[in-house]
Amino acid sequence: MSNKTNRRNFLKSSSLLGAGMLLPNANTQAGPNIRKGPLLDKVRVGFIGVGMRGRGHVDLTMRRADCEVVAICDIDPKALAATQNMLSKAGKKAAAAYGEKGERDYKRMLDKEKLDAVIIATPWEWHSEQAIACMKQGIYVGSEVCGGFSLDECWELVNAHEETGTHCFFLENVCYRRDVLAVLNMVKQNQFGELLHLEGGYQHDLREVKFNDGVNPYGGGVEFGDKGFSEAKWRTQHSLHRNGDLYPTHGIGPIAMMANINRGNRFTYLTSTASKPRSLNEFIVKHPKGGPNHPNANLPWKLGDIVTSVIKCNNGETMILSHDTNAPRPYSLGFRVQGTKGIWMDVNKSLYIEGSSPKAHAWENADAALKKYEHPLWAKYANDAEGAGHGGMDWFVLNSFFNNVKANAEAEIDVYDAATWLAITPLSEASIATGSTPQAFPDFTRGRWMKKKNTFGSM
Amino acid sequence: MSNKTNRRNFLKSSSLLGAGMLLPNANTQAGPNIRKGPLLDKVRVGFIGVGMRGRGHVDLTMRRADCEVVAICDIDPKALAATQNMLSKAGKKAAAAYGEKGERDYKRMLDKEKLDAVIIATPWEWHSEQAIACMKQGIYVGSEVCGGFSLDECWELVNAHEETGTHCFFLENVCYRRDVLAVLNMVKQNQFGELLHLEGGYQHDLREVKFNDGVNPYGGGVEFGDKGFSEAKWRTQHSLHRNGDLYPTHGIGPIAMMANINRGNRFTYLTSTASKPRSLNEFIVKHPKGGPNHPNANLPWKLGDIVTSVIKCNNGETMILSHDTNAPRPYSLGFRVQGTKGIWMDVNKSLYIEGSSPKAHAWENADAALKKYEHPLWAKYANDAEGAGHGGMDWFVLNSFFNNVKANAEAEIDVYDAATWLAITPLSEASIATGSTPQAFPDFTRGRWMKKKNTFGSM
Repeated sequence: MSNKTNRRNFLKSSSLLGAGMLLPNANTQAGPNIRKGPLLDKVRVGFIGVGMRGRGHVDLTMRRADCEVVAICDIDPKALAATQNMLSKAGKKAAAAYGEKGERDYKRMLDKEKLDAVIIATPWEWHSEQAIACMKQGIYVGSEVCGGFSLDECWELVNAHEETGTHCFFLENVCYRRDVLAVLNMVKQNQFGELLHLEGGYQHDLREVKFNDGVNPYGGGVEFGDKGFSEAKWRTQHSLHRNGDLYPTHGIGPIAMMANINRGNRFTYLTSTASKPRSLNEFIVKHPKGGPNHPNANLPWKLGDIVTSVIKCNNGETMILSHDTNAPRPYSLGFRVQGTKGIWMDVNKSLYIEGSSPKAHAWENADAALKKYEHPLWAKYANDAEGAGHGGMDWFVLNSFFNNVKANAEAEIDVYDAATWLAITPLSEASIATGSTPQAFPDFTRGRWMKKKNTFGSM
Repeated sequence: MSNKTNRRNFLKSSSLLGAGMLLPNANTQAGPNIRKGPLLDKVRVGFIGVGMRGRGHVDLTMRRADCEVVAICDIDPKALAATQNMLSKAGKKAAAAYGEKGERDYKRMLDKEKLDAVIIATPWEWHSEQAIACMKQGIYVGSEVCGGFSLDECWELVNAHEETGTHCFFLENVCYRRDVLAVLNMVKQNQFGELLHLEGGYQHDLREVKFNDGVNPYGGGVEFGDKGFSEAKWRTQHSLHRNGDLYPTHGIGPIAMMANINRGNRFTYLTSTASKPRSLNEFIVKHPKGGPNHPNANLPWKLGDIVTSVIKCNNGETMILSHDTNAPRPYSLGFRVQGTKGIWMDVNKSLYIEGSSPKAHAWENADAALKKYEHPLWAKYANDAEGAGHGGMDWFVLNSFFNNVKANAEAEIDVYDAATWLAITPLSEASIATGSTPQAFPDFTRGRWMKKKNTFGSM
């Protein structure tokens, strides 16, 4: 313990020296390590938010020999109880519980628990505040994904990191999807030639996430907000009041890594265009527990059913990012990676590599190539990840997170990625609000993207 | 003959009366007929441009009992000879041949041949001038597709039609593709609910069209312009000098018809974003007959390899239109039609209709639905179309054209469609040139879209 406490205290006191001492070393070197500190053999982990998603992370964390779940925080006593129950069933010690003192009780946890790492899985509007609070306490933080609310918020994340020297890992699990990492490997081995165009998105019919019966998390009613349960309690409000790409990261994270964004390349600008909003209202009106006279049947939903953003990159690539969460459709992140030598789409596992695909101008099934170019991470850990959430992705993202935490290494998906990807949401809202005018991306790296190498996937 | 001559002369003299008399009747009534004239039993057809594409139209025309190929015009004597040879082999009379007097010799043909209809299949830059010349002669004209050069050009087409009362049919064959028409039928029968989002494009690796050996039309070298043959002679220049969606109609035509564009709906604005241009240069440099020292190996290609346009419609739908003709990839027009009840994509024949698809949140193969909703035109004429170009589409577009000509009916794909779709190209060029700023579509119908009904597919 003294080892860990020492490091935590060292981090806290270092931050008092200001950013000047740490940064030149921190962000200009090629490798992923900001600086050397004593390595941790066991990580004391706290959790802010232990709803459905947070408990998924607790579950994976408690199974790891290198981690200890020492504290949990949630304003919902049922969520705390369910988590303790999970720990108890697994033969683990009960965690110190926080949250009964209100929404900011997490601060008490950060103060008292001598944590090495915190994982945040709260509603979207809390992520940045809590991540910044962790960094200011010198605690390595992993934040669940979402979209941002303002560019200022994105800058605050960056500034908190630079001022404290503490790291923030943005837990974008799809960056670790098996096919996504294999395709990243193919990109690095020049299978697609020079990249030209990429696509991704969040095309996921969330109607039974946005509405439920107030008891079960998925479907069974048309309630949300105070009368809803789980994500319906808070997520649905955003569809009512906002119009933009509200959830960009699952689509953009993987293709940003392939295009070396913040690592030799950057997003220059985007335009966004939204379709009319119709599907949520139609869902309520047609639902057996809804109907035209239900109180939710006449709400002015703002979120366009399909929001399309087009991003231009500094190195000349284009990207299409889709947000499509209201209408009935099969789930698809709609990935496409296209270069001067070939193209991959996850739809129907479509691959064409000129000179290598068996037939000219014809798709081949991508399976063989995805196997041949299996990413080293999956080659090594596929068995460990088996059974973990979202097809193993969740295991990989937490594994990278904890490896980074133990080495106090620069986050593999860092605060600059977080700021850049989060910024898509307010930029997209601004573009839609002004008739799809282009919106420039801030350079959150302050120019460091020009020198930084892409080492994603190395930990 | 006197019957036909009379009608042609009537049209010519009518046009002298100006637009006032004809138009109120012309564009405000619901049905497809502008006015009654004597019906034709045999259409005297002339052709401007009898290269590869033009000869395809001659071939289909000479097989029709209701048509006679009476005149052809081309500046290339070989094209004229090949056409005469085709006619002769089919036991048809030789056509009167024009072109030897230069690029505007087509005017002599229009003056002398008492034509009922003309089909234009020349290089892009000639379509509008020639279509306008036909209208001014009172000759029903069918024009091959392309992208426009300016909004003025689009207005000139509209004005020529309105001033003369003569029709221009824009020969967009993909509007008649079997699956496209079946899906249009599904849209009309409300299978997709209210439409939200549509996609289409021209994703066609044209490298072996843009470059050849100067003798054969497809591939075998890296020549174009004066040293190229067929389309390489003229089409490739546009990739060298222009950056925009140069060929929008195959993608936009079908989804425009589904979304009732100019028939109760209209395009409001677009944004366009282009990737860097790399693939044409790479093709030349790597080609066995090219190489880094070939004179074509250091040209400043302007056309982005992938150009993405997003269109907003007046009724709130969004559309993504792709132009992707330089890089290696399997052919795909990339259609997607999505509404509040379901979604179709031509990629992998993907269909999902809520409540009708066998499994929730899962694609079904579209074949059964496409058969069930077979469009009446295909149900009636599939056998006639068999063996015709592009999977039968070419037969259908010409059949509609000649049916319209015989009745002197309003063109099923009319001059307003032509102007609106052609306008995508200059608007896309303007958007790209100004950093993807939104570009408003002119309303070429001058407000008549608000009343016009969608009768596409009824002839």
